[in-house]
Amino acid sequence: MPAEEILDDIEAFVLDAFGTITDWHGTVTREIKDRAASISDAEAQEFTEEWRRGFMENTSRIAKGSEGPLSADVLHREILDSMLASARWSNLGKQWDENARQKLNLVWHHLDGWPDASKGLHGMKKKKLLVVLSNANIRLLADMAKHGDFPWDVVLSTELFGTYKPNEKVYKGAIHHLALPPSKIAMVAAHMWDLRGAASCGMRTIYVRRSSEDVNAAQGVKCKEEGGEVDIVVNDLVELAGMLERDTRVTQYHV
Amino acid sequence: MPAEEILDDIEAFVLDAFGTITDWHGTVTREIKDRAASISDAEAQEFTEEWRRGFMENTSRIAKGSEGPLSADVLHREILDSMLASARWSNLGKQWDENARQKLNLVWHHLDGWPDASKGLHGMKKKKLLVVLSNANIRLLADMAKHGDFPWDVVLSTELFGTYKPNEKVYKGAIHHLALPPSKIAMVAAHMWDLRGAASCGMRTIYVRRSSEDVNAAQGVKCKEEGGEVDIVVNDLVELAGMLERDTRVTQYHV
Repeated sequence: MPAEEILDDIEAFVLDAFGTITDWHGTVTREIKDRAASISDAEAQEFTEEWRRGFMENTSRIAKGSEGPLSADVLHREILDSMLASARWSNLGKQWDENARQKLNLVWHHLDGWPDASKGLHGMKKKKLLVVLSNANIRLLADMAKHGDFPWDVVLSTELFGTYKPNEKVYKGAIHHLALPPSKIAMVAAHMWDLRGAASCGMRTIYVRRSSEDVNAAQGVKCKEEGGEVDIVVNDLVELAGMLERDTRVTQYHV
Repeated sequence: MPAEEILDDIEAFVLDAFGTITDWHGTVTREIKDRAASISDAEAQEFTEEWRRGFMENTSRIAKGSEGPLSADVLHREILDSMLASARWSNLGKQWDENARQKLNLVWHHLDGWPDASKGLHGMKKKKLLVVLSNANIRLLADMAKHGDFPWDVVLSTELFGTYKPNEKVYKGAIHHLALPPSKIAMVAAHMWDLRGAASCGMRTIYVRRSSEDVNAAQGVKCKEEGGEVDIVVNDLVELAGMLERDTRVTQYHV
């Protein structure tokens, strides 16, 4: 089915945040560099990637049933402290006291959007219900939206469902609260694991190619019409908003 | 403490929806009248008030621990069916089939805002985090916002906390997800029972006088400085937004 026909049936977009809407890699690397003049650009990048990898590994583990904090802020801080106590980063650990660590942990609250994000979301919102469904906690997502001008209609955190993506409780919880058949909801993400979780609950899937996500694999993702796995593939959110504009029927959001 | 000083300390407004932001009385009465030419204006008002009273009684009962539906849509529909089966409204019950009842039940999704609501909320949002905390379900609140242009940053439904206001789980849940000391959050409502629930959890309280809420009592509500019970009393949300403008310090919302 052509992308435009699929989009006609969609009533709500459910969006991933970290990586899909925001450029965590660029923002966190810059903030680390600003706070640690002694380290190289490559080291700042490695610090960012290790912090993010720690978050991904822990949320994945908790999504499978292990114990752990359900707030991204708490989890980010635990990983940060653990990194700063390691041999690799102990030099930074000595430099950053409690106050500095608290402030650094908030960097995730003001990640910059990808250049297309705010404009794309505003376009998408004109036609559909716009929902964020993220492993981040609610306050983090609210701050992120204020910082980046992301006009989503509903903020859903996995914390509300007592786990993290890709546990099915999260997607089923979102479907329940949106009161829509899952086939009328499209998950929008730059991660195949997230879209697979949504698809297993009956949702449509839209893949966004982002340079920092699914590295080495993103370019190979294809839509079903081309023999791939997802419903639609886009390069950014302005492209997705543009596909909605092409629809000549009246699809203005309404109850 | 003068209202402006209290407001300086507030970081988030948590708003009630039905009655505080929206005029359920006017909208539902008009919709009933439009769908039942045979009934008088007074009867249409009585129908609206009975429906709303049923919702208030049921949510209050469930907030105290009784069993019952946690979705406002489900609860509204149960009350509607019960009313239409009663001797008083059986004539309307015969006129409205399943399809008509489903559509009528959605009237709560597109309640008109009070004349000041959208403008007031936009002003409030410039300075603070704006959160709705309602006994309505999330989809209802999302539709309400689209219809009335209510730009809240976060949508919290009591359904997320497994009960209804004024159960303390609701206020404590909101405080947790906003990650703020309760004294930095103000509950904004046109119902004293809602503000008392918030105050008992340490939140600040702002009372809005609305003609359809706390009937006969609203005019008598006073702020603490005048010997009353709440922190601030306003006549509408534009007045509240204006009080924020008077603050000459830089209070632009930030992390």
